[in-house]
Amino acid sequence: MSAYDRLTDRFARIATINEAASILNWDSEVIMPEGAGAARADQSAVLSSLAHGILVDPQVADDLAAAEAELPLDAWQQANLRLMRRTHTRSVAIDADLVEAIARANSRCELAWRDARKRSDFAAVQPLLTEVFDRARDHAQALSPVLGLSPYDALMEDFQPGVTAADVEPVFARYTAFLSEALPKAEARQAKLPPAVPICGRFPVEAQAEFCRALSARMGLDFRNARLDVSTHPFSGGTPTDQRITTRYNEANPADALYAVIHETGHALYEAGLPAAWRRQPLGSAAGMAVHESQSLIAEMQAGRSDAFLAWLGPALHAALGGAEAAWVPANLALLWRRVERSLIRVEADEMTYPAHVAARFTLERALLSDDLAVKDLPGAWNDAMRARLGIEPPDDARGCLQDIHWYAGLIGYFPSYTLGAMAAAQLMAAIRRDVPDLDRALSDGDFAPLYGWLRPKVHAQGAFLGLNELLTQATGKPLDSADFEAHLTQRYLAQA
Amino acid sequence: MSAYDRLTDRFARIATINEAASILNWDSEVIMPEGAGAARADQSAVLSSLAHGILVDPQVADDLAAAEAELPLDAWQQANLRLMRRTHTRSVAIDADLVEAIARANSRCELAWRDARKRSDFAAVQPLLTEVFDRARDHAQALSPVLGLSPYDALMEDFQPGVTAADVEPVFARYTAFLSEALPKAEARQAKLPPAVPICGRFPVEAQAEFCRALSARMGLDFRNARLDVSTHPFSGGTPTDQRITTRYNEANPADALYAVIHETGHALYEAGLPAAWRRQPLGSAAGMAVHESQSLIAEMQAGRSDAFLAWLGPALHAALGGAEAAWVPANLALLWRRVERSLIRVEADEMTYPAHVAARFTLERALLSDDLAVKDLPGAWNDAMRARLGIEPPDDARGCLQDIHWYAGLIGYFPSYTLGAMAAAQLMAAIRRDVPDLDRALSDGDFAPLYGWLRPKVHAQGAFLGLNELLTQATGKPLDSADFEAHLTQRYLAQA
Repeated sequence: MSAYDRLTDRFARIATINEAASILNWDSEVIMPEGAGAARADQSAVLSSLAHGILVDPQVADDLAAAEAELPLDAWQQANLRLMRRTHTRSVAIDADLVEAIARANSRCELAWRDARKRSDFAAVQPLLTEVFDRARDHAQALSPVLGLSPYDALMEDFQPGVTAADVEPVFARYTAFLSEALPKAEARQAKLPPAVPICGRFPVEAQAEFCRALSARMGLDFRNARLDVSTHPFSGGTPTDQRITTRYNEANPADALYAVIHETGHALYEAGLPAAWRRQPLGSAAGMAVHESQSLIAEMQAGRSDAFLAWLGPALHAALGGAEAAWVPANLALLWRRVERSLIRVEADEMTYPAHVAARFTLERALLSDDLAVKDLPGAWNDAMRARLGIEPPDDARGCLQDIHWYAGLIGYFPSYTLGAMAAAQLMAAIRRDVPDLDRALSDGDFAPLYGWLRPKVHAQGAFLGLNELLTQATGKPLDSADFEAHLTQRYLAQA
Repeated sequence: MSAYDRLTDRFARIATINEAASILNWDSEVIMPEGAGAARADQSAVLSSLAHGILVDPQVADDLAAAEAELPLDAWQQANLRLMRRTHTRSVAIDADLVEAIARANSRCELAWRDARKRSDFAAVQPLLTEVFDRARDHAQALSPVLGLSPYDALMEDFQPGVTAADVEPVFARYTAFLSEALPKAEARQAKLPPAVPICGRFPVEAQAEFCRALSARMGLDFRNARLDVSTHPFSGGTPTDQRITTRYNEANPADALYAVIHETGHALYEAGLPAAWRRQPLGSAAGMAVHESQSLIAEMQAGRSDAFLAWLGPALHAALGGAEAAWVPANLALLWRRVERSLIRVEADEMTYPAHVAARFTLERALLSDDLAVKDLPGAWNDAMRARLGIEPPDDARGCLQDIHWYAGLIGYFPSYTLGAMAAAQLMAAIRRDVPDLDRALSDGDFAPLYGWLRPKVHAQGAFLGLNELLTQATGKPLDSADFEAHLTQRYLAQA
C-alpha cells in the first residue's frame, strides 16, 4: 500500500467520524431532550478528539512526506494531497487537550445560548462565551506562526481558504460606501411604489411544510437521502447521502420558512453534487464556506426572488395555502419579498442591508478575538455598530448580539463568507444568464434544471479542487469582484419602476 | 494518576463513544432516510472499532495488572475493576478487523431485514444473515478458549454474565413440561369464561401517543431526559440522560402500543436508576439482559396486567380514547388482555406461551451458530419448531423467522434472557408483594411509586455490582428459580374463575 493510499484510508476514517458527529449535531439541534446537553457535549468532544488523534498520529507526517516525494499522482490526487497537508499542518499545531477543550466549550456555550436567546439573557451565557473566545484565541495563537497568518486570518482560513481580513476589508469598505448612497435611494424609490397587499391569515405549519418539502424536491433534493425538520436557526447538516435541512415556521408569514428552505436546499444540493468518487476525501468536500454560501444565495436571492420564479411561486402558493388571491399575485410578492429595510435580524435582512450586518460582525469578532473588546462589553458594542451602520438599535440582546448561533458555537471568522458568497452568487448568476438564455423561462415554470445543469459541473462537481477565485475564474471568466453584486442590487432596487 | 484512575478515564471514554453509537443506532431505526444505510453502517463500524482500539491498547493490560496489584480498593471499585478485566479479556480475543467486520455485517443485514420483513422475502436477506452468523462464529470461536466457555456460551455471557446454555436447558425443559400440561388447561378454562366485549373503533395515533407518553411519565420516566417515538420494532435505547423509547401504533388496537410503552418504560427506568456516581463505568451499567428484561416485564406483565392496575387503566383509557364504555371495564380488559393463545409473533405472545417462542429460538440459534443448521434452512426449521411447540405454523416468513430483529442485528445468545427475565420478574414481584402490602391499592390508583420505591434501591441502584443470582438472593432471599413464575401463571390462568 502506498503512502498516498494509506493517507486516503486515514482521511476516510476521519471523515466517517465527522459524519457521525454531524448527525449528532443535527440531533442536538432538532431532536435531543433538553436534559441531555452535558452528555452530548462530552460525546462531541470525544469524537472530535478521536478524529484529531488519527490526524496527528506521527505516521501521518511520514506518509505525507513520502507521498509528496512519491509522485506521479494526477492533478486531482495532488490537490487532495495538498489539502491533506493543509489539514495536517492546522491540526498538529494544537494538542489533543486543546481540541477537546474547544469542542467542550463550544458545545456547552451553544446549549446555554438556546435558553439565553429565548430569555434575552446575555449575562447567562457571558462566562461561557468568554470561554469560547479564550479557547479560540489559544487556537488562533497556536496556528498563527505555523501558517504565517494573523491569528484572525488563521481562523478564517478554515472556513474560506485563501481569503484574509486584508482581502475582506476593502470589499467591505467599498460596499459600505455603496450602501450609504444606495440605501436612501432604494428607500426613496420604494416609498413611491404602490402599497403591497398584505398576506393575511394563518397558514398551518403542516401545509407550509408540505409545500416546502415539495419545492425542495422540485429544486432537486432527493428525499430518499434527506430530511426536512425544524430548528431554532435553520441549517443544512448531515452527510451527502443523509442530508438534514431545517427551517422554522411562522404561521402568519409563509415566506420565513419558504426562503429558509430554498436557502438550505441550495446548500444541500451543493453537498449532494460534490464528486462522489472523492467522497470522504478532502478534495470531495466543499471549496469553502463562501462558495457554499454562493450556492444557498443563488437559490434564495438570485433565482428565488427573481420575477421569473415569483411568476411560478405565486400561483403555486395560492393553490397550496389558500387565502386572498390578490396577495399571491407575483408583482405583489415582489413588493412584499423584495423590500429593502433597515432591520435587526441578519437572517431576515434583505440582500442590500445584509452585508452591513456581516461587516459589523466582522469588526466585532476581530476585536473580541484580539481582546480589544471584552465579551462583557459585546452588547453595547453591538448596539453601537447597528446604530452606526443602519441607524437602528436593538431593544434587547435577543434581537442584538444573541441572535446568531455562530460565536456561541465557536464559529469565529465565518461571517465574512456570507457576503463573499452573496457576491460570488451574483457573479455566477450573471455568467449563467449569459450561457443559458432560457433560464427565466424555466424558472417561471418552477423548473430548476437549467440552473443546476450549469452549477453542477462548474461548481458542485469541482469539490475542493479549486479555490474561490480559481473556481470563479474558470466558471465566470474572472476572480471575485463586487461589480456583479452591485449591478444586481442596482437593477433590482434602484431601477426606475 | 493511579492505574485504576487511568482505567476509569479510559472506560469513560469508551462509554462516551458507545453513547454516540447508541444515539446513531436510534437514528437509524427511527429517523434516517432510506438511502443513508450504507454510510451509517460505515459510521457504526468506525465507532465500534475506535472503542475497541481504546480497549485493546497495550497499556490496558499493564494498567489492569497494576490496579489489581495496587489495592486496597473498596468493594465497588474492585467489582468495577473485575468488570473491566472481563471486558478486556473478551476484547483482546478478537482483532480490530473482525470487530469492524462484525459491526458492518450486522448493520447491513439489519437494514436489509427491514425491507425483507415487509416483503416477507427471506431470500433477500439470507446471504447477509449468513455473513452475520459466519462473523458471529469467528467471534465465538475466538472467545471460547480464552473464556473457557463453549462458543455459544461465550456469546451469551456478553448478554447475561454467569449464565450458560447448561443452566438454561433444564429450565426450558421443565417449562416445556409445565406448558404441555398448563396450556390445554388454561385454554379449557378460558373457553368457559364469558365472551369479551371487543374494543371497536379507530383510535388515532395522536391520542394513543399522548396517553402512552403520559402513562410513561406517570410510571416515572422524566421526559426532560427522554423521547417516545415510532419504530418497526419497539426498543429502548439512547443513554441514561437521553433515553429513547419507541413503540408502534395500531389504530384498531391501542393495547399494542400501550403495552410496548409500558415494557420499554420498564427498561428505561432501570437505566435511569443506575448508580449515577458510576456513570460510564462498567459497574454503572445494567447487570445483564435478563435483569433488564425483568424490569420491562415486571412493568408490562406483573404490574401492567394486574387486576389492580387494570382498575385504573380501564377508566383512564376510556376517558382518553372514548368508545363504548363496556369494552373498557377492567374485568373486560382482563378477558381481552390476559388471554392465553397459541400465536405466531413473539412480541405479541401472552406470558404463558412466550417461553415456547424463546425456547425455539434458543435451539435454532445454537444450531445456526454451530453450523448444524444452514441459514438457508432456517425458514423450514423455524416452522417445524413452531409446529412442535405450539401446534401452529407461520403462513409466511414475515410471521416466522423474519419477525425479530435480533439475529439480523447480530444479537445471538440474547433470546434466553427474555425468559430468565420473566422468571426473575415473577420472583421480584412475589418479594415486593411480601414487603409492600399496599402495592395493589397504589396500582389501582395508577401509582407506581411503591413499586419503584422498592425496585430502585434493590435492583436499579445496584448497577452491575451483583450477578443475576446474587442480585435476586439479596432482593428476594433466593437465587433464580421458576417456582414463582409458574405460581404466577397458575394463579392468573388456571385458578377457578
